[in-house]
Amino acid sequence: MEKLVVFGLGLIGGSLALDLKLRMNFKVVGIDKNPEHIKKALELGIIDEAGDLDQLADASVVIIAVPVNIIPKVTLQVLDLIGEDTLVFDVGSVKNEICKIVRNHQNRKNFVASHPLAGTEYSGPEAAILDLFDNKVNIVCEADKTDWRILDKALSLFKKLNMRIKMMDPVAHDRHIAYVSHLSHVSSFMLGKTVLEIEKNEQAIFDMASTGFASTVRLAKSSANTWAPIFMENKENLIKSLDEYIKNLIEFKSFVETNNEEKLKEAMNNANYIKSILNGIK
Amino acid sequence: MEKLVVFGLGLIGGSLALDLKLRMNFKVVGIDKNPEHIKKALELGIIDEAGDLDQLADASVVIIAVPVNIIPKVTLQVLDLIGEDTLVFDVGSVKNEICKIVRNHQNRKNFVASHPLAGTEYSGPEAAILDLFDNKVNIVCEADKTDWRILDKALSLFKKLNMRIKMMDPVAHDRHIAYVSHLSHVSSFMLGKTVLEIEKNEQAIFDMASTGFASTVRLAKSSANTWAPIFMENKENLIKSLDEYIKNLIEFKSFVETNNEEKLKEAMNNANYIKSILNGIK
Repeated sequence: MEKLVVFGLGLIGGSLALDLKLRMNFKVVGIDKNPEHIKKALELGIIDEAGDLDQLADASVVIIAVPVNIIPKVTLQVLDLIGEDTLVFDVGSVKNEICKIVRNHQNRKNFVASHPLAGTEYSGPEAAILDLFDNKVNIVCEADKTDWRILDKALSLFKKLNMRIKMMDPVAHDRHIAYVSHLSHVSSFMLGKTVLEIEKNEQAIFDMASTGFASTVRLAKSSANTWAPIFMENKENLIKSLDEYIKNLIEFKSFVETNNEEKLKEAMNNANYIKSILNGIK
Repeated sequence: MEKLVVFGLGLIGGSLALDLKLRMNFKVVGIDKNPEHIKKALELGIIDEAGDLDQLADASVVIIAVPVNIIPKVTLQVLDLIGEDTLVFDVGSVKNEICKIVRNHQNRKNFVASHPLAGTEYSGPEAAILDLFDNKVNIVCEADKTDWRILDKALSLFKKLNMRIKMMDPVAHDRHIAYVSHLSHVSSFMLGKTVLEIEKNEQAIFDMASTGFASTVRLAKSSANTWAPIFMENKENLIKSLDEYIKNLIEFKSFVETNNEEKLKEAMNNANYIKSILNGIK
């Protein structure tokens, strides 16, 4: 039975463990600095046993699913200790930093920098679910720096999860993901915070949530421990997108203040174009 | 067969027509200044026939589902022409203005100011769907100004649609709805606009939409013709909430800029509290 070692038993690490155990019949060893996570993951059958770094030499696959600011340190440690055929991949939401840090490691060829575009607003081992990755895109960066047999092993595994693979430059990845995903998270976190601050009537929030609030604020339920490091690691791109977002909000507010219905509608009609993109049709 | 007259055959008016025809066996007469809407509503079986103002005297129920800035004018016209037992209700997202305007009309007692908290991001007669209102809250304002038999008729109708009724002062309604719903819409519209402006790669938007963007931007697909009048009519409350939202975004940005991880997490943890409210559990 091949051994899969998973570092970080949260939503992504836990869901990968669950699914790969089922679909590829791995023996799954879990590593997490939080003993509660280990306990929970064992209880829920997400992992077969708790492990440590001496389990790496004969591991077939190692997944790094720790918070993004810890990924570099853990990845370097792991790459020092693995066997010749071990596949190591991370699942971090920011890719340039990790790609830079492993670039000159002697075992760089065993590493695949990946970002599965999947998740929910929940966190921890309890949030782990089956089928989270089916039909989702997995972005792979600097694939040319991975040994072709190791990369092929990663592709087989990703295909067992029914993921779609997209190769991307890490700098481009971080820019795109800031604009599309990270900005959405900040927008939603701050919507939640603002509504809680100005709307003192919790019953009204609950009663009125069906008017679009519930879906727009969904991401505000996400874990601060996961997202603070992501925002800081992708700081420049995030700030650029936040500047644009704030500028647009201020402009929109001025249209409302001055009763400029024409400009107000124009701004909304521009936003409407997102419909055709999300439907995949121009 | 009792006659239902619906003014405005968009998402809400159309869905009410569809559902009430089925559940209460009305003959449905539609009125819409857009001839395309009339044509479409006839085609889709949303209405039985197109009508005009001379159809009001013997109508059992009249629904005002036109854009919120048109509601006062249409409502006053309708109240001038109805029969003694006709129930008239509007479905506007802003309530104080309409409540003020009908207050001294001789047929005020025939009117129910309501706001069904239901909808989708789509618009027009094609967006009309069955079961849109089941288990949704319908807010009723100044119910004491409606004749009790007319109000009871409205409650029977709302209950046929399986709506939950909540009585609310119109000033409080407009404040709550700005904070919870209208702010969400602006936040989402501007997210869509910003991402379209800074992210020139449409394929990247499409590929990365599963990372939370798709749900956060959903409301940006909404109709500008519906929402511009709502924002302007609820201007003061909306601006107050926008000011707070922008302030929070600027503050969050400064935490990222200064690597203030503690404050960043605190802001997100505060937002996380929305989870317990939306789950209905403190």
